[in-house]
Amino acid sequence: MNGVFAVLVTIDVRPEALAEFEAGLRANAAATRAEPGCLRFDVLRERDDASRFVLYELYTDEDAFFTGHRAAAHYPAWTALCERCVVPGGRRNTYAVPAFAEDVPDA
Amino acid sequence: MNGVFAVLVTIDVRPEALAEFEAGLRANAAATRAEPGCLRFDVLRERDDASRFVLYELYTDEDAFFTGHRAAAHYPAWTALCERCVVPGGRRNTYAVPAFAEDVPDA
Repeated sequence: MNGVFAVLVTIDVRPEALAEFEAGLRANAAATRAEPGCLRFDVLRERDDASRFVLYELYTDEDAFFTGHRAAAHYPAWTALCERCVVPGGRRNTYAVPAFAEDVPDA
Repeated sequence: MNGVFAVLVTIDVRPEALAEFEAGLRANAAATRAEPGCLRFDVLRERDDASRFVLYELYTDEDAFFTGHRAAAHYPAWTALCERCVVPGGRRNTYAVPAFAEDVPDA
């Protein structure tokens, strides 16, 4: 698939694992932003729930996420971090594309 | 509240109202981007569901959204559009803030 690809991630972290998760998330954000196919990687948390994180990620295309990102050297550390810190079933991805061909989000 | 404020919106549109909704959404996006407090307004839809839209909006602060955006001249047309076109209960907002003070998303 060609064209900008968006990934929105919601992550519920166990409160007792918050400090470890935050350190790992910072490292993952920095490493992902350095990938050639990553256009944007915004790290947020819900206004009223500091243990629920929201990521907004833009990639050059779908392959940059499913192949490039997931094959990156730093990716196994991220999945291991989530296994340790995230509430069971608490990581949910939404995949999205530009709604209008003439209005494509950029970096 | 000071500091960047993010609004993520999921909108389920009635399939028969899709053309009307798309035209109104284009207009709303253009008008919102022209607001002084709006930093970013990305218009997406789910990869596997063309009737589910996802908006990613960044504002300079919470007031820019709850006061500036909702008091804008174009806002009533948006709410009326949603009343006509959106599945009942199908518009959901998530409010978020930067997870880390040293890593704030920009426009």
